[in-house]
Amino acid sequence: MNYNQIFDQAIDRLHAEGRYRVFIDILRNKGAYPNARCFAGHNGPKPITVWCSNDYLAMGQHPKVIEAMESALHDVGAGSGGTRNIGGNTHYHVDLEYELADLHDKEGALLFTSGYVSNDTTLTTLGKLLPGCVIFSDELNHASMIAGIRNSGCEKRVWRHNDIAHLEELLAAEDEATPKLIAFESVYSMDGDVAPIHAICDLADKYNALTYIDEVHAVGMYGARGGGISERDDAASRIDIIEGTLGKAFGVMGGYIAADKRIIDCVRSYAPGFIFTTSLSPVLVAGVLASVRHLKSSSAERDAQQASAAFLKDAMRDAGLPVMDSTTHIVPLMVGDPVRAKKISDILLAEYGVYVQPINFPTVPRGTERLRFTPGPAHTEQMMSDLVGALVEIWDRLELELRKAA
Amino acid sequence: MNYNQIFDQAIDRLHAEGRYRVFIDILRNKGAYPNARCFAGHNGPKPITVWCSNDYLAMGQHPKVIEAMESALHDVGAGSGGTRNIGGNTHYHVDLEYELADLHDKEGALLFTSGYVSNDTTLTTLGKLLPGCVIFSDELNHASMIAGIRNSGCEKRVWRHNDIAHLEELLAAEDEATPKLIAFESVYSMDGDVAPIHAICDLADKYNALTYIDEVHAVGMYGARGGGISERDDAASRIDIIEGTLGKAFGVMGGYIAADKRIIDCVRSYAPGFIFTTSLSPVLVAGVLASVRHLKSSSAERDAQQASAAFLKDAMRDAGLPVMDSTTHIVPLMVGDPVRAKKISDILLAEYGVYVQPINFPTVPRGTERLRFTPGPAHTEQMMSDLVGALVEIWDRLELELRKAA
Repeated sequence: MNYNQIFDQAIDRLHAEGRYRVFIDILRNKGAYPNARCFAGHNGPKPITVWCSNDYLAMGQHPKVIEAMESALHDVGAGSGGTRNIGGNTHYHVDLEYELADLHDKEGALLFTSGYVSNDTTLTTLGKLLPGCVIFSDELNHASMIAGIRNSGCEKRVWRHNDIAHLEELLAAEDEATPKLIAFESVYSMDGDVAPIHAICDLADKYNALTYIDEVHAVGMYGARGGGISERDDAASRIDIIEGTLGKAFGVMGGYIAADKRIIDCVRSYAPGFIFTTSLSPVLVAGVLASVRHLKSSSAERDAQQASAAFLKDAMRDAGLPVMDSTTHIVPLMVGDPVRAKKISDILLAEYGVYVQPINFPTVPRGTERLRFTPGPAHTEQMMSDLVGALVEIWDRLELELRKAA
Repeated sequence: MNYNQIFDQAIDRLHAEGRYRVFIDILRNKGAYPNARCFAGHNGPKPITVWCSNDYLAMGQHPKVIEAMESALHDVGAGSGGTRNIGGNTHYHVDLEYELADLHDKEGALLFTSGYVSNDTTLTTLGKLLPGCVIFSDELNHASMIAGIRNSGCEKRVWRHNDIAHLEELLAAEDEATPKLIAFESVYSMDGDVAPIHAICDLADKYNALTYIDEVHAVGMYGARGGGISERDDAASRIDIIEGTLGKAFGVMGGYIAADKRIIDCVRSYAPGFIFTTSLSPVLVAGVLASVRHLKSSSAERDAQQASAAFLKDAMRDAGLPVMDSTTHIVPLMVGDPVRAKKISDILLAEYGVYVQPINFPTVPRGTERLRFTPGPAHTEQMMSDLVGALVEIWDRLELELRKAA
């Protein structure tokens, strides 16, 4: 048994497939985001522009967020010091859960250390509490939902992405008395498309299934108060569990669910990934409180983000670049090959100071490797025009095809 | 299928067993810790003293930590904005991984959002990479290790707590060619005892097994530089993977592993709980960097903690209180019943302003419910004497037995 050999082979496989990941070492410039510094090991940090952040609305540098965090840091200190049950339940946590419950018009909410943990431990726990439960999962669901479903030990039925007829076929095949949970996302973040929430809820009603929606790429950004696609589409009351993140549009870190009190109490009381972990630092929670409250009353950031995304998509399309169909703020550019995607990304960073990460398997299916841009309110039209110019030059240099507009 | 009924029954079971958890709502007073405020819903917050925090060395209020976090907050903003691979790899993360690798004298380290996630996703990933691996697990291992082992899909062999003969018996029963991983903790935090690391490593050598140690209740607190029990016992070089937390003695939040480069690279490249989650906020990472660096060179906090723990254990023993055997900084007081443990805890909080949480199943086995005190460098001898006086009064009031000293 040679352990080193096995580990070396695992790494060799990644190199052979061209998907060995190298992390770009950066520091963002607060107050000047999307500007940042890139550390490449020589001549000090180099100025870059960040195009792939999930700090979608630049709330990570919002003065209200920074001020709230600084204030909490000086009031209560760095960490929470314990699990929620043992010393780590701060007043900020309590307040934020009220705020998030209100955001989604639910009775309660529950914080986790990340969106990943929210999905993993909530789905695991619900699946274990419901005897014989079958979980219905959209085929493009995020890795954290897949982990939670697997870890629940439940039977899983995977329906073709956003295919309502297929979902109904699978639901109809189960016994009426079987507990059922339908798990899906609102915004699929690698393609930028949106789930048909009402149609899914119609099926849930018809087949008496619980509904679980992952809104991590939508909270803060859609709906009049930032309650996500479920708010925008007036569907929140039809969803049993809404899951969100505090680390993307809200700009900080952490995750949560919102649901009725009895579901919140069950997850709070039974979920290992909630019970046995140090709670979020109160400094983070204070920052999120400020962010959620601000985005409940301000739509300026949402509107500016949508305008930026529309501008960039149009500019790419006009230039003949293979921008994918997206009905949201996500701007994915199809490349279709991991080596080429990395090469384009490397040139952008080295020659243009543009930081956009290539997206490879297992984040997206093989053969659909892409560059994924997330323009926001802080990206100017000039930045976007310059970006498109750079991409066209690289497309030419690498002899890639540009689609001529009709 | 009545979902509400199932959820209600799950909660009713907790009430019936007397282990329904009520979170105490507090804010710690930075600079005056262990003093804090307790929010009970009337007359404003009430002053309390915290006795159950895992901020063991009060580093959560250390000026160097606070200053580093404030500085990072103003330099780079609130959150990282992405996964480590997509925009969330800040220079602080890179620096801290070097610092933690050095702390444990390993080639590399890897950060996670929590200690729970470190254990869960690392064990899951190692188990999946090693074909047919069998994992040997101490029966008192933490829930996060148990989750990781279960989620790995590997066969599991549970050995009786710290029982080397039993471990050898289980190892000897497996085929020589089978990959083996021995997973254990250094300090078991609910009892305060310590694993025989060298004896376990001797068996690992003999049976060609990998070793994985959870040092979350030891890093920062044991060893000349805070490298944990493995440093104190000069055993770090014999352990393949050392796992630690940034949320206890280091005072902030997060988790990590340290190991040789090839193992770090494998986990970095294959672990879903690492890949698919927003990285730690750079504000937290900056604070941890300051904390780890400070505790590498200062033993004052460690020494003061050990002195406090010894003082409190002696005082409890002298008073005839049922303090459990503990060879570490943990001071557990056996109660043996969940309802009584909660009652004592409630009286302490309401009448004495003493906050110590009752520890119930599933954190400890049923029938071993206890109060768990974690005195540190900021708890004074007067505070500890007052605490013992309060406990003796309550023991009398509830007609519990005090053991007379021999």
